[in-house]
Amino acid sequence: MIHKLEKSYRSQIETALQGDTIQEWYTRKTVLVTGAAGFIGNRLCERLKRFGARVIAADIAPSPPDTDPWKTLQIDCSKPAQLRHLVANCEIAFSLAGRCGHEQSMNDPLGDMQANAEAPLSLLEACRRWAPQAHVIFTSTRQVYGKVEALPVDEARVPRPVDVNGVHKLAAEGHHRLYWEKHGLRTNVLRLTNTYGPRMRIHGEGRMFLGEWFRSVLHGEPIVLFGDGKQLRDLNHVDDVVSALLLTAMHGSHFPGEVFNLGGKEALSLQDLADLIIRLSDSRAGVRQQPFPEPLAKIQIGSYWGDFSKIRTAVGWEPRVKLEAGLRETFESLRWNSPNS
Amino acid sequence: MIHKLEKSYRSQIETALQGDTIQEWYTRKTVLVTGAAGFIGNRLCERLKRFGARVIAADIAPSPPDTDPWKTLQIDCSKPAQLRHLVANCEIAFSLAGRCGHEQSMNDPLGDMQANAEAPLSLLEACRRWAPQAHVIFTSTRQVYGKVEALPVDEARVPRPVDVNGVHKLAAEGHHRLYWEKHGLRTNVLRLTNTYGPRMRIHGEGRMFLGEWFRSVLHGEPIVLFGDGKQLRDLNHVDDVVSALLLTAMHGSHFPGEVFNLGGKEALSLQDLADLIIRLSDSRAGVRQQPFPEPLAKIQIGSYWGDFSKIRTAVGWEPRVKLEAGLRETFESLRWNSPNS
Repeated sequence: MIHKLEKSYRSQIETALQGDTIQEWYTRKTVLVTGAAGFIGNRLCERLKRFGARVIAADIAPSPPDTDPWKTLQIDCSKPAQLRHLVANCEIAFSLAGRCGHEQSMNDPLGDMQANAEAPLSLLEACRRWAPQAHVIFTSTRQVYGKVEALPVDEARVPRPVDVNGVHKLAAEGHHRLYWEKHGLRTNVLRLTNTYGPRMRIHGEGRMFLGEWFRSVLHGEPIVLFGDGKQLRDLNHVDDVVSALLLTAMHGSHFPGEVFNLGGKEALSLQDLADLIIRLSDSRAGVRQQPFPEPLAKIQIGSYWGDFSKIRTAVGWEPRVKLEAGLRETFESLRWNSPNS
Repeated sequence: MIHKLEKSYRSQIETALQGDTIQEWYTRKTVLVTGAAGFIGNRLCERLKRFGARVIAADIAPSPPDTDPWKTLQIDCSKPAQLRHLVANCEIAFSLAGRCGHEQSMNDPLGDMQANAEAPLSLLEACRRWAPQAHVIFTSTRQVYGKVEALPVDEARVPRPVDVNGVHKLAAEGHHRLYWEKHGLRTNVLRLTNTYGPRMRIHGEGRMFLGEWFRSVLHGEPIVLFGDGKQLRDLNHVDDVVSALLLTAMHGSHFPGEVFNLGGKEALSLQDLADLIIRLSDSRAGVRQQPFPEPLAKIQIGSYWGDFSKIRTAVGWEPRVKLEAGLRETFESLRWNSPNS
């Protein structure tokens, strides 16, 4: 299906890549964002507001006030009835509420289920009952694949998660597919890879390794690199992830029920990434290699690199932020905002 | 692994198939059964008691008193802390608590998640924390496969559930695999096919089509057969399912983390099955064919027949009850116990 795009549709996509068309499309659209206080959700709300959308922002956690001019509603997204009035008029629902901590999911599997399976299912249920017109975009993760042998990884690979987080995200993907196939609710799933950018989490559970690295550099500590540093990773800047979400909502109705990988144009080793961050930040503390602590060693996936050609063909997305520039901007922004630096 | 059985182990299995060895093995074993008030759980407890096992029977629902001489504890199995004292000394935990209604899962997906994903995960968590010695046997379903093209279906087939029940059972399978791979807790999963036998449910949500058919025959009503009746199904008698559970707990430790299909020696069409039941019951009301009602049509899987060669090789199980004899016994037993017949 995806390979047989009509010409008119293709040119429509190409036009959409111009900012003006996206902006116009979102102006006065009613858009729900769950997980609006999170790193990606916050940035998405910001962009939607700039485009003149009517943003309904919801999160179980409060937003830091200075980053929340749209006043995020603090609600428990795991109860469909709580979502009823939020979804009623919405045209698009970005389902971003969830947890991304892998180790955390092993320590608190039931909490992970609530956050990553129950909450998105509740949103689907609310839409099925009270907002069948909505188009739901769900953020899943490359973690559903587990250990992969050949890179890059496309969506045809059979998922085999290595942690509880991956099991629950995969179950939520199943719900989104079924709600399209069985209930006719338009849904799409994006499998995100490592996302970085300004306001990424550098403290607390659920931050990714890169957040931890930035925290170390900001505190003048060495970057602690687990393992041999040869594992490959791809990264996406948060603005690219936001673009993928926006474009998928615009065009994903042509591909309801489909799952799309995000991914980077290149994959680099953790060692190279650590060296790059040391260079960009002028850190003198360097990199310290250590064996993986046991709980982390158990859930390692080895190398990963996502093949994003399906979403490129379908909605015209590709990552635009260059890694070095993006990391530099992220570091500067974190330094500016970090109370301890 | 499964194909390389040692000779001594193979003869051990062959001996185990003699009832005496099973009985001896279970005598004084401490065994937890969740879902003990259910159709299969009840029959399993009965057999375990007969073998002299110390049975801890738990269910969220009460058992009918005349079928529950072992006094099932009525507890909410979805809270690990509630299970703490139940698992503490158990050597084997049969994780049977759950729901099997497919249509019901579409109407109440969050209830299905609680019953089929949260409850078994809670049991795993309880065992990880307080009973790492336990061997957990979980009953999954052929429904995880979804629509299949070639029959019979073996465990290498990539699952693609067509309903919420299948999504949650598949997630629970993922948990059981991870608790072995990451936490070293011995687990096995059995994918059950249609189970029938005395005391099967013929009323209420979650009964299978065969329960509904028996109910019709008992009430002198025609069997309502949805669709063209050509879909194939295999069936297992509850006593065979109980034997599979008992043998898996005995030998599955040699194959921790493995998933096994159950299945029938033959598959027959729904039309042939309906005709057989009409004949066995001397029903004069016959069979009435009807198109599938829409909610059911949506979640049909077409034909199914499970390949059980993996479990036969691993633990020596195969179905023993002949279909016609089993159905006749079931009908007689239901007629005897049905207040309305």
